[in-house]
Amino acid sequence: MSGITIWTLDWVPQGPRGFVRDLRLRWACEEAGLPYEVATVRFQDRETSVLAHQPFGQVPFLSDGEIELFESGAGLLHLARKSEALMPRDPVGEAETLQWIVAALNSIEMVSVPWWYLDMTGASPNGLTDWLASRMDRLERVLESREWLAADRFTAADLLMADVLRVPQLRAFGERPASESYVARVTARPAFAKAHADQLAHFARADEARARS
Amino acid sequence: MSGITIWTLDWVPQGPRGFVRDLRLRWACEEAGLPYEVATVRFQDRETSVLAHQPFGQVPFLSDGEIELFESGAGLLHLARKSEALMPRDPVGEAETLQWIVAALNSIEMVSVPWWYLDMTGASPNGLTDWLASRMDRLERVLESREWLAADRFTAADLLMADVLRVPQLRAFGERPASESYVARVTARPAFAKAHADQLAHFARADEARARS
Repeated sequence: MSGITIWTLDWVPQGPRGFVRDLRLRWACEEAGLPYEVATVRFQDRETSVLAHQPFGQVPFLSDGEIELFESGAGLLHLARKSEALMPRDPVGEAETLQWIVAALNSIEMVSVPWWYLDMTGASPNGLTDWLASRMDRLERVLESREWLAADRFTAADLLMADVLRVPQLRAFGERPASESYVARVTARPAFAKAHADQLAHFARADEARARS
Repeated sequence: MSGITIWTLDWVPQGPRGFVRDLRLRWACEEAGLPYEVATVRFQDRETSVLAHQPFGQVPFLSDGEIELFESGAGLLHLARKSEALMPRDPVGEAETLQWIVAALNSIEMVSVPWWYLDMTGASPNGLTDWLASRMDRLERVLESREWLAADRFTAADLLMADVLRVPQLRAFGERPASESYVARVTARPAFAKAHADQLAHFARADEARARS
């Protein structure tokens, strides 16, 4: 397949809609004006349909000409290198974007996602709460002093960090006004609205197709 | 400061020695034959000395000419782009390396590090055990069928994944012979031995300096 294709599931339950990580790649393509198609693998037999492409059974994955990439963070870095809209071209701005992309994945999500997993599975007490509070407080200090994470402008690092932080359970995790206004600012971008609406519409069409069959 | 400088702590207790993440960057430079210096910030007042460079209070960070980068994963990607010894130059090989670097950070460490944190802090039961087992089993399937993660050769992705997996608690987490032999194979590289010995010597010198003062 030539051009960019974002692969996701053909259907998911209501809960994750609006949060499936194909949104990160849709959003990046919308910001950059990169044309893309969306293709699907079957939810119903995802243990085989997804695992054939992604060893951990997750979506999304991305194809771009001869390249196939899994891990939304890797797909995002791949797209960021294609467009200055996502990452500055100067070495310092590029390095700042890279470091904050990795910070979103490995300093925030590395604590927030397992915390949320424990929260969902009813762990009490949640043994990651203090660690998460410490990470979120430190990020709050950063966001108190700047509008964007890297290079004094919107970059793919903001796209990813805002996507990490916008999970409702995390927004309810203590009062952090700078982080909250950062999430509001980044997700107010038209490219987010488009990607988000498109993901919801994608799964709504799947409901209709199920209802007809 | 011109050239590559890897920043770490001037001293740490015995426990983390050999596992402080400056090792990832030392190892990468050794593999690539990139000259580098090691510089330090003070352990004793790390809440200020580290936080001035790294908002989450972690080491390492890397400087390279005008660039300063925190997050060991970001530093590794930066170094990988400087040397074909760490990452192939063809787009497919580069994408595979990138995807497995992000998988190490966001599919394995995102579960293994919090699991280990809960284990250390005595959580019982450890609510992340099943999730970790699932991720480790899936990685075992991958490693059963190949010697290296990306591009049929050693890359920075192997360096990082082996560093993630070599934590003793993780090696003791069930029998996964392909993963175990992968860790043994990757850490048998002379560049790992050099980086590891250098980190141990760095902290041993700090003990001697403390004993003298």
